[in-house]
Amino acid sequence: MGIDKKWNIRIGSMKSGPKNLISDVEGVTVGHSTIACGEVQTGVTALKPHQGNTYLDKLMAACVVFNGMGKSAGLVEVEEMGYIETPLMLTNTLSVGTVSEALVRYMLEQNKDIGDTTGSVNPVVFECNDSELNELRGLHVKEENVREALENCSADFEEGAVGAGRGMKCHDLKGGIGSASRVFELDGKEYTIGALLMTNHAKFEDLIVAGDPVGTRFENPYPSGTIRPSEKDKGSCITIIATDCPLSERQLKRIARRAITGLSRTGSFMANGSGEIALAFTTANRKPHYIKNAVMQMGLLHDESLDTVFRAVIESVEEAVISSMLHAETVTGRKGMKLISLAELL
Amino acid sequence: MGIDKKWNIRIGSMKSGPKNLISDVEGVTVGHSTIACGEVQTGVTALKPHQGNTYLDKLMAACVVFNGMGKSAGLVEVEEMGYIETPLMLTNTLSVGTVSEALVRYMLEQNKDIGDTTGSVNPVVFECNDSELNELRGLHVKEENVREALENCSADFEEGAVGAGRGMKCHDLKGGIGSASRVFELDGKEYTIGALLMTNHAKFEDLIVAGDPVGTRFENPYPSGTIRPSEKDKGSCITIIATDCPLSERQLKRIARRAITGLSRTGSFMANGSGEIALAFTTANRKPHYIKNAVMQMGLLHDESLDTVFRAVIESVEEAVISSMLHAETVTGRKGMKLISLAELL
Amino acid sequence: MGIDKKWNIRIGSMKSGPKNLISDVEGVTVGHSTIACGEVQTGVTALKPHQGNTYLDKLMAACVVFNGMGKSAGLVEVEEMGYIETPLMLTNTLSVGTVSEALVRYMLEQNKDIGDTTGSVNPVVFECNDSELNELRGLHVKEENVREALENCSADFEEGAVGAGRGMKCHDLKGGIGSASRVFELDGKEYTIGALLMTNHAKFEDLIVAGDPVGTRFENPYPSGTIRPSEKDKGSCITIIATDCPLSERQLKRIARRAITGLSRTGSFMANGSGEIALAFTTANRKPHYIKNAVMQMGLLHDESLDTVFRAVIESVEEAVISSMLHAETVTGRKGMKLISLAELL
Amino acid sequence: MGIDKKWNIRIGSMKSGPKNLISDVEGVTVGHSTIACGEVQTGVTALKPHQGNTYLDKLMAACVVFNGMGKSAGLVEVEEMGYIETPLMLTNTLSVGTVSEALVRYMLEQNKDIGDTTGSVNPVVFECNDSELNELRGLHVKEENVREALENCSADFEEGAVGAGRGMKCHDLKGGIGSASRVFELDGKEYTIGALLMTNHAKFEDLIVAGDPVGTRFENPYPSGTIRPSEKDKGSCITIIATDCPLSERQLKRIARRAITGLSRTGSFMANGSGEIALAFTTANRKPHYIKNAVMQMGLLHDESLDTVFRAVIESVEEAVISSMLHAETVTGRKGMKLISLAELL
Repeated sequence: MGIDKKWNIRIGSMKSGPKNLISDVEGVTVGHSTIACGEVQTGVTALKPHQGNTYLDKLMAACVVFNGMGKSAGLVEVEEMGYIETPLMLTNTLSVGTVSEALVRYMLEQNKDIGDTTGSVNPVVFECNDSELNELRGLHVKEENVREALENCSADFEEGAVGAGRGMKCHDLKGGIGSASRVFELDGKEYTIGALLMTNHAKFEDLIVAGDPVGTRFENPYPSGTIRPSEKDKGSCITIIATDCPLSERQLKRIARRAITGLSRTGSFMANGSGEIALAFTTANRKPHYIKNAVMQMGLLHDESLDTVFRAVIESVEEAVISSMLHAETVTGRKGMKLISLAELL
Repeated sequence: MGIDKKWNIRIGSMKSGPKNLISDVEGVTVGHSTIACGEVQTGVTALKPHQGNTYLDKLMAACVVFNGMGKSAGLVEVEEMGYIETPLMLTNTLSVGTVSEALVRYMLEQNKDIGDTTGSVNPVVFECNDSELNELRGLHVKEENVREALENCSADFEEGAVGAGRGMKCHDLKGGIGSASRVFELDGKEYTIGALLMTNHAKFEDLIVAGDPVGTRFENPYPSGTIRPSEKDKGSCITIIATDCPLSERQLKRIARRAITGLSRTGSFMANGSGEIALAFTTANRKPHYIKNAVMQMGLLHDESLDTVFRAVIESVEEAVISSMLHAETVTGRKGMKLISLAELL
Repeated sequence: MGIDKKWNIRIGSMKSGPKNLISDVEGVTVGHSTIACGEVQTGVTALKPHQGNTYLDKLMAACVVFNGMGKSAGLVEVEEMGYIETPLMLTNTLSVGTVSEALVRYMLEQNKDIGDTTGSVNPVVFECNDSELNELRGLHVKEENVREALENCSADFEEGAVGAGRGMKCHDLKGGIGSASRVFELDGKEYTIGALLMTNHAKFEDLIVAGDPVGTRFENPYPSGTIRPSEKDKGSCITIIATDCPLSERQLKRIARRAITGLSRTGSFMANGSGEIALAFTTANRKPHYIKNAVMQMGLLHDESLDTVFRAVIESVEEAVISSMLHAETVTGRKGMKLISLAELL
Repeated sequence: MGIDKKWNIRIGSMKSGPKNLISDVEGVTVGHSTIACGEVQTGVTALKPHQGNTYLDKLMAACVVFNGMGKSAGLVEVEEMGYIETPLMLTNTLSVGTVSEALVRYMLEQNKDIGDTTGSVNPVVFECNDSELNELRGLHVKEENVREALENCSADFEEGAVGAGRGMKCHDLKGGIGSASRVFELDGKEYTIGALLMTNHAKFEDLIVAGDPVGTRFENPYPSGTIRPSEKDKGSCITIIATDCPLSERQLKRIARRAITGLSRTGSFMANGSGEIALAFTTANRKPHYIKNAVMQMGLLHDESLDTVFRAVIESVEEAVISSMLHAETVTGRKGMKLISLAELL
């Protein structure tokens, strides 16, 4: 459920999709595997960009690194080739290798040709550092969590302290997975933009909720003498943008770049230790793995029409940050650290 | 032993270091773990950039992607932060996740603070696709291979069909690991540049050995009717450049970019399916993990002096390609594929 | 005079420099040549990065293009070589060529070696499109305007509808030249960051002044039936950041990138037609044109200390946008278009 | 006339177009304005990408900077927007401003809407430093030279020491303007790739002509005691690639990147002082300035088919370097400097 319905918070002026989730883009589904056990608070989130075979039927994509203090895997090939060919995975910072291997195994099962009669496969895995709440060094994410997240993929999915978002911290409060969407019309046809974020960035005093400077208006909820989040922002924020609007790789990069405006509006300033990365894909332009004809056709917007799309991205990203926080419950983890829910605070 | 001594092939006009290997740069060592068993022909190669703790004592670095059809891990952070903080690993394309996880475990053992009281760690892992010779889908590289490669690190190391280079193919002949070095003087002081390559790219007919168009002068060594390498170049070539010359991150990127000139001279044309990536680091500029003072000093060359360094890079890279091939024995692997050694051919 | 003193508007929490201008960075001066005559409302602004010979004594610099719908000159070499070697010029979009030629002539006069016994010179010229107010097609900027702007350079300089800012429009109100600065301490030493902006971007309804959503709180000041600014944002916003803090080229790029956060906070969303470009330089790291020794020393901050610098940049940029608008008087230009001052509106 | 016919030099294995010039791509024309008068040896070259109104009917384009020691104008917008909207101009390094202004005037004449009812225009101007032969400081290029070059545009055009190439030096011999083309078939349809180069780079000893190491095989043609080219390579090499093959912006960037392989094969190593820049455009994908529908269609190749295109680019670029030299006569210029023709030497 969108944050508009439950908390009466509206961000921006555009119309949301029916779920106000990234899954308002036809075919996109999201699933979680959550590990919540004492000092271990972590997990995996999977996003399937469409419901077919993503290796055979790749989607046009582009990515942008705003602040590259991050360990995400697979971006080199996305940039060069302009496609994604696997589900997109999110997890904690030290589990990227584990999740990559598991995703490779999943892809090999589904595609007998990979590494035999055809080329390799490029697993895309994003990460944030959840060590504030999570006993990170134990590498508790396993292949089965990847399987579970993939199996759980659904157009209806939870936000907040779930999946890879389980241990995340945002503005010193509980962060996690957030999503939002916007719809708009071009040439009389309706298109959808959706954002999925893993929020794990920024300080309390900088928090702005729909223009309201909550971080300065409220007292810091961690009084001295209590266990407090660390002073340095070692966070990160991952943004995935999906659309059914026909865009070229150059244009997908342009819309991915607008994520940073959405993040800036809630008070992020891309701290040194925070990896801000965005990937955008469109379900409207597909690239078959096997070639029929050398020349293909694709759609692209005239760039003059992009302003509407930019607004949709910015509103979706800003709202997804707040949604990740409002949906996240208070969680206690490693070393007694207890991250408070924004919903409790407001 | 340099290819100059054994095969009397000299590339370029500059002087080599004593070993004519990347380990001529003080502190750099390389180790292999080779898996050679029937259809499984693959492995891991490790490069330690210095002999201390690379996490505490990071080295200034930069990377360049010429053709990003590749799955290498860790480049986003190298680009943003301008350092490497782990040994550099090479392996086959589907084992990047496995090797990343193993490298994370190795780093966690050596650094009790990672993920606990300090930040995360950025494992750097490079790959090429060795499926021509290697039964790739079995994911035969394991954590112990990573350990072994790291333990085997030495200033004296083998080139050719060893370690990650075991299954690689170069110009349709046997490729693998190659290395070379050059020394030069600036301000009366001697500096060293070394290159380590994993060669897995290009077609036979394009091969040029020290200016000699071997690929057109010789007949294709795979007559029709025999098992022949696939027609498409799905290869890749990884270049690691080390130096003890003080360079800034911008300058390291500039010298990494010259790798492509060296590759072009042996006949590479960066095919669509071939991931050409280079990383350069200097042992002269270090970045401590823990901060004493906010402001540090670093050395850099006046850019006017870079031409000598550029030449040293280009000669080292061109020679390392040929060295990888001359040192590689003929290997038979998957589906009866037998890749012939250049040394046999000449 | 800073906007804090006159309008009692404070942005952020950090301390400003004595002038709250980019010229708080020792050696930086700014000068204008304003053309204000009926339908011609345009001009030139010059920024001298230090008071010596900028060609002989280059300053370390880096630039970032957020939205490259712009015609700025000289950025290719700044990116590659990491320096600026001329004063930085600002003007209208069609006068970049004229100003480049005039700046070349100025540099040739001061340096008899350029193009004779030594290399070329890289003029850096930024632009925005002031056609809303200015009769742009007449190319009214001449070499004498460039001369005048350079001669007028002073640590005390005007903001608002002056110099290159004369015809600019910001959030549908009068924009122009704005500046602000912040000071901070590292290792017990005080450093300064200053920003100079040419603002010509965004729509009225998006305007946020120090957190106050002025654009939605006030009615649009251009009632229907009157001459109104065009609907499309064809603007641009140029950001120049100066500091005396020792930073490497990589770090200068990182701080330039934070300009976008400052812009986002006043309501910019980088419209398709708006060129958002930032250049940052440091007076602390210089590159002599003529070489004494191959190896030089430079200072850089440990990146862990950058967060303070990032905040200083973001606050300066946000404040400079508002300052450009508050200092700009209402101006009437081409086709009766009258752009209203924010100071009048508030 | 192609160099194959006159000098019996063949580069590569692919078929040339009928003229073996970039104008084999339908609609592309090239014109020169040459200034050859004692110490003044310089000029302007214009390339019209099609014969219609380039502002109303933009062509899809992308650019790559290999070594950014260069002052070329207009690349920021090409990169962001993926188009060219003016003829492409080449000139000497200090005349970029002059030529930009003249090109703006030319565009304003042809388009009454620019800067009035529609946006600005992005002039694209490339440069090399011809100060070895040319009295550069006099800024001898004038608006009339730009006009003349544009008026002279023809599918039949001269190569060698003409237009902007008049004062250029390549491998210490006479360089200038060179061109070549290749044709290839995809899906049963013939496509053409053409390259136009302005060559002003590299040292004699590195020269390789179609695999023949001329630079080491011949003695340096400038004996000591005579006036010799300067030791430092302060050159540059500009590459323009045209095709009628449908490619996306990402793919145009990929093919532009292959120019460096062609340059490497003749002996370039991208010296510090040499600006190597390439721009590629396709006549097959056009972007109208005025929008009819928000969504447009474009063609792109499946990337699997790009290898043929890459080869065509590399062969064209390598051949265009040699063609620029073979067509260039010996020229004497500033301070008695006499640059010898390769045709004389061979």
